[in-house]
Amino acid sequence: MVIEPSKPQYIQIADELRARIDQRVYQAGTSLPSEQRLADELGVSRVTVNKALTLLRASGDVKVRRGAGTYVRSLSRILRDAKRRYAARDHGTGAGEVEVTGLNLQSRTDYREIGRVHPPTAAAKVLRLEGDKDALVRRRVLYANNEPTQIADSYIPWDIADGCDALLRADAGKGGSYSRLAELGHGPVRFTEDVNVRVPDDAEQRLLDIEATLPVFEIWHVAYDAEDRPVELCIHVMPGHLWTLRYDWDDETRSGARH
Amino acid sequence: MVIEPSKPQYIQIADELRARIDQRVYQAGTSLPSEQRLADELGVSRVTVNKALTLLRASGDVKVRRGAGTYVRSLSRILRDAKRRYAARDHGTGAGEVEVTGLNLQSRTDYREIGRVHPPTAAAKVLRLEGDKDALVRRRVLYANNEPTQIADSYIPWDIADGCDALLRADAGKGGSYSRLAELGHGPVRFTEDVNVRVPDDAEQRLLDIEATLPVFEIWHVAYDAEDRPVELCIHVMPGHLWTLRYDWDDETRSGARH
Repeated sequence: MVIEPSKPQYIQIADELRARIDQRVYQAGTSLPSEQRLADELGVSRVTVNKALTLLRASGDVKVRRGAGTYVRSLSRILRDAKRRYAARDHGTGAGEVEVTGLNLQSRTDYREIGRVHPPTAAAKVLRLEGDKDALVRRRVLYANNEPTQIADSYIPWDIADGCDALLRADAGKGGSYSRLAELGHGPVRFTEDVNVRVPDDAEQRLLDIEATLPVFEIWHVAYDAEDRPVELCIHVMPGHLWTLRYDWDDETRSGARH
Repeated sequence: MVIEPSKPQYIQIADELRARIDQRVYQAGTSLPSEQRLADELGVSRVTVNKALTLLRASGDVKVRRGAGTYVRSLSRILRDAKRRYAARDHGTGAGEVEVTGLNLQSRTDYREIGRVHPPTAAAKVLRLEGDKDALVRRRVLYANNEPTQIADSYIPWDIADGCDALLRADAGKGGSYSRLAELGHGPVRFTEDVNVRVPDDAEQRLLDIEATLPVFEIWHVAYDAEDRPVELCIHVMPGHLWTLRYDWDDETRSGARH
């Protein structure tokens, strides 16, 4: 271990433990040696090890299970490439599972609710639902190797979804709900995403199995049809330590330069 | 205040205080009433008010200044529209200041370092700098109304920047460094951004004037020229509670549908 005199000791210990996790000295999902053993081995006090572990908890690199010790994170960061995930539906993979399947992780989706609801005010506004118009909601939690990776609540204006039985089923059929929207004459042609970061509320901590201090991404993904009508809003809540979001675009000031 | 029996009392108090901040009952940048006064007025214990304020600190809605009390956040969330911010340079506004200026906030940029450096390994890899090739670094902190809003460290391969005096000055001239890159034959035509979220380190807490528990966005923005060479990497570190990131794109599976 290289000692950098400028860094406090507990930060150096945290860096060292993080490097060991990256190098799989400590395997994903397994329990770490006890604080006392780490202190003895690294030649520092147990208080220093404890402070280092607090940093690793804050960064999501370890998880403390009450009464059971400290465990190494079981998933590496997953790359979420916005453009490619939605393009994948034409190849038969649902957008919700494309990243996880690509990493050879076991993907699972649990639907919590599918049905007609009165959407929250902010969601209704994005979907331009005036008065008290309803929406179809599809609420789900996605998992990779049995670890929750995101909550995704999708809203579709009820007047669009009405009569499409597939949208009321957990499995919305080949190409997912966007393909059903296309069949209904409202196929998405443009997307926007607004990304915020915040701490999770109680329900999210429970559903995502994370501590109150671990920040989450909240993404509002909106799909527009060819008439520029918003036809779906999906609100994603994703543990920040599990994801890297990727976006790419061509420079508009130089359009034509590459085509 | 609407009492929702399902929510713990301190969360209801936090919601109420947040609503008052949004409605400017408590003005941006001013100090909140004391915990005791809030407790008396809201008819709850001081402990409950204190727990509610802890939530507001975690969400960045209030800031505690040691020995000086609790202050309302002075900036609302700023929308960072990725495509538009970089397109703005042709209209004379630098990408770094476009959002802040648009909100009628006072924008300021402090340069911490401009010069030739050996870039960090990960940065060198993104810029495909083999061996120990150097880069020009431009490190700055951006402010809105004297509040720090982001750290932005920009790297340009030295073999590209070499000889361009403007890039060594804080003011890189009309259109900023991208316009200089264009004059050097390396004008950006495509961008990618990788977005992560994490807690800030000590230096970042100091530069951004935030607590250790407030998450930050870390954005790696890469500009590519027409030969698909990465010509600039800018690493942005931005307090999460100050920003909403916006991205939009046309659906690739339906290209031609709108054109």
